[in-house]
Amino acid sequence: MEKRIALHKEEYIEQLKDFLRIPSISTIKEHKKDVVKAAEWLAESLRKINMENVEIIETEGHPVVYADWLHAEGKPTVLIYGHYDVQPVEPLDLWDSPPFEPVVKDDKIYARGATDDKGQLFIHVKALELLMDENGELPVNVKFCIEGEEEQASPNLPPFIEQNQERLACDAVVISDTSFIEEGQPAICTSLRGALAMELTVTTANSDLHSGVYGGGVPNAVHQLVRILDSLHDQDGKVAVEGFYDGVPELTDELKQEVAAIPFDKEKTKEQLGLDDFYGEQGFTFQEQTGIRPTLEINGMKGGFADEGFKTIVPCQANAKMSCRLVGDQDPQYVYDKIQQHIEANKPAGTRVEMVQYLKAKPVSLNSNTPMITKAADAYESVYGKRPLFPKEGGSIPIVEVFSRVLDVPVVMMGFGLPSENLHAPNEHFHLENFTKGIETVCKYLKSF
Amino acid sequence: MEKRIALHKEEYIEQLKDFLRIPSISTIKEHKKDVVKAAEWLAESLRKINMENVEIIETEGHPVVYADWLHAEGKPTVLIYGHYDVQPVEPLDLWDSPPFEPVVKDDKIYARGATDDKGQLFIHVKALELLMDENGELPVNVKFCIEGEEEQASPNLPPFIEQNQERLACDAVVISDTSFIEEGQPAICTSLRGALAMELTVTTANSDLHSGVYGGGVPNAVHQLVRILDSLHDQDGKVAVEGFYDGVPELTDELKQEVAAIPFDKEKTKEQLGLDDFYGEQGFTFQEQTGIRPTLEINGMKGGFADEGFKTIVPCQANAKMSCRLVGDQDPQYVYDKIQQHIEANKPAGTRVEMVQYLKAKPVSLNSNTPMITKAADAYESVYGKRPLFPKEGGSIPIVEVFSRVLDVPVVMMGFGLPSENLHAPNEHFHLENFTKGIETVCKYLKSF
Repeated sequence: MEKRIALHKEEYIEQLKDFLRIPSISTIKEHKKDVVKAAEWLAESLRKINMENVEIIETEGHPVVYADWLHAEGKPTVLIYGHYDVQPVEPLDLWDSPPFEPVVKDDKIYARGATDDKGQLFIHVKALELLMDENGELPVNVKFCIEGEEEQASPNLPPFIEQNQERLACDAVVISDTSFIEEGQPAICTSLRGALAMELTVTTANSDLHSGVYGGGVPNAVHQLVRILDSLHDQDGKVAVEGFYDGVPELTDELKQEVAAIPFDKEKTKEQLGLDDFYGEQGFTFQEQTGIRPTLEINGMKGGFADEGFKTIVPCQANAKMSCRLVGDQDPQYVYDKIQQHIEANKPAGTRVEMVQYLKAKPVSLNSNTPMITKAADAYESVYGKRPLFPKEGGSIPIVEVFSRVLDVPVVMMGFGLPSENLHAPNEHFHLENFTKGIETVCKYLKSF
Repeated sequence: MEKRIALHKEEYIEQLKDFLRIPSISTIKEHKKDVVKAAEWLAESLRKINMENVEIIETEGHPVVYADWLHAEGKPTVLIYGHYDVQPVEPLDLWDSPPFEPVVKDDKIYARGATDDKGQLFIHVKALELLMDENGELPVNVKFCIEGEEEQASPNLPPFIEQNQERLACDAVVISDTSFIEEGQPAICTSLRGALAMELTVTTANSDLHSGVYGGGVPNAVHQLVRILDSLHDQDGKVAVEGFYDGVPELTDELKQEVAAIPFDKEKTKEQLGLDDFYGEQGFTFQEQTGIRPTLEINGMKGGFADEGFKTIVPCQANAKMSCRLVGDQDPQYVYDKIQQHIEANKPAGTRVEMVQYLKAKPVSLNSNTPMITKAADAYESVYGKRPLFPKEGGSIPIVEVFSRVLDVPVVMMGFGLPSENLHAPNEHFHLENFTKGIETVCKYLKSF
């Protein structure tokens, strides 16, 4: 199998490049057509490998690509989930090559979506093609359910899953959209933080005012937003919103040990990310802060005149985008309400605030002892020579909780990314070694049933 | 004179529209050609009214337009200063008509630069044309020194004045770049706040990081900038930078009374500006806050992903533009150093800060009893039927201090704007009544010598 993959490697990469060239940014309206184009490209790829019932199913947002092959009688059914949409690309000037013109350098492919998630998703397409070529049939029943709204937090997939429970019925959901611990150390994620995103707009006047005429006597929207945002955390890096930590599990010795087992090289991470120092909630380790503690982060902020040049104004409006990672029994709606109450209570005089909620996803925790997961661990071990760890990921794949709850099956997060691959950032890339070894791992996994 | 101005009004407005159509934004590089175009347009206007020695003089930045007429033997020489550059126009979507397509509505002309300063500057061009037409000569000697960098805080004019002291020698500098107290109540400004502008950039990592993977464990550039900015003011609206208030004059009863004499209608201002409430340094009135107290304002801020859509990142860089208004004996360089020290001392762990200084201007205070100013007051009174007040303006015209000190003459700030004319903001406009009455006032003033 390894040899056959090596033989086809260049051809696979050219195909992946075609997929990566489509700027399918789901959150930006003007890319709507590109998102549809990516769905069509994917559907065509699935038809080419003899998948059946290939369908581009419309939703209220971007479409879902469905396909299946159900002729492995008596064998389990695996539902492959992934997403064909990608993150925005700003800031463009920090990319070494254009985000939608994929290039291969040092056996890595650079492009937006390379690791998140087109490259990882394409592993499954190629694995099934190879298996089909080998025997004219597949060792298991397979369904594909690939969405185009993951980077928008999947607003339309949960109702789609609810409404299509029979069509999507399976024995396990397999997702490749997570990362190794580090090069050579595979991981099957068994815990994901929940998520909550929101936007806060502060308005203080009808228009920007001359800072010489009014400065000092009228509220400044950027100042007021700064004051509100600063009130969200205390001096120890703790979120200062009352009730925010309700439902966060206590840090037991067992949990502490489990988290501490995940390798973390402080100096190496500092150097890799270009940090002068770490920063976070005091009293917790980095692995705890990023894996099992909730967060409230400002993702972006804008107000007044921030372009080239200078404008001596008192800005009348300022805006911040924020998101939370949630854990344990934290409820996204409850947390949002508490933040909103905090902001209302802490806004300075003369400040009008408006809030919009974007996404809500509950935290999820999976049992790592189910056979669907242990067989995946075996497959990794036979290809990489190392058994995967079962980390608690700090990220959120909102749909995992929905699959797990609605379809009532294990969700196997077989990631092939690396944490250093700049996902969501400039110069996103994917190690081609993990692309080819990923194909091999998936083949071995599906053959093991 | 009044009738002759009325006769020519439409023609003058068409000429002013031509001037306003040139997008001479001095702070934006791509408008460099437009700034030169405005200088050429102005030079041509001065040639047309028979000014002599008209010259566009290069500087290290945008050029100075010089012109003179020196045949009024035994009469004083008046140097007219103004600026042909304008402020940027963002946010464009808040303009009711395009900023460089002037329109007249309700006897007001709308365009960027209408009141600040093209409209006010053009008053002098038209006044001199009328006086010249009347007698074939002027009642005084006149020099023009018009710059194109006022909105950049005049970086090249101070050395130009120093190097051209003889050429610019005069008995008074006349500037029309300030405002009435309100409609019908003229003002000759005798005090200006100084200014200081700077930019602060905070960097925390090499690139934006995924908030799911790193959120909670690494510094967030927007958070860190928010924390720094919030530390600049205390809960009472006072600047919390040590040494910031050094040199600020004590608020004597006399000063209190002088400032209180400037009319201010709280409710009207609130409604006009769309404020829910005022906000400023506690213990001072609005007139004190905006006229004789120093300020530190954030003019703009930007960091992370702030465009349409959403990106769950930990931003690696954030930036704020800030400016101060200074009073009394505050020294801009000293204040800048103190702010820099404060920021270094208050930056959270893992934060790299970089600061750039933009402008420095000392505060200025003028004697309102000099004849060059009392004659201007007489001219206003005869046209408007109301004697001007002598307010302490909160704004800064950095060059006033330089003219006053280097040429050692009174500076007469004969403003014809209104505070409600949205200078530096969308929908800037200029009342045409003050344009025509301004021409009449300047004619009367120059004839009075």
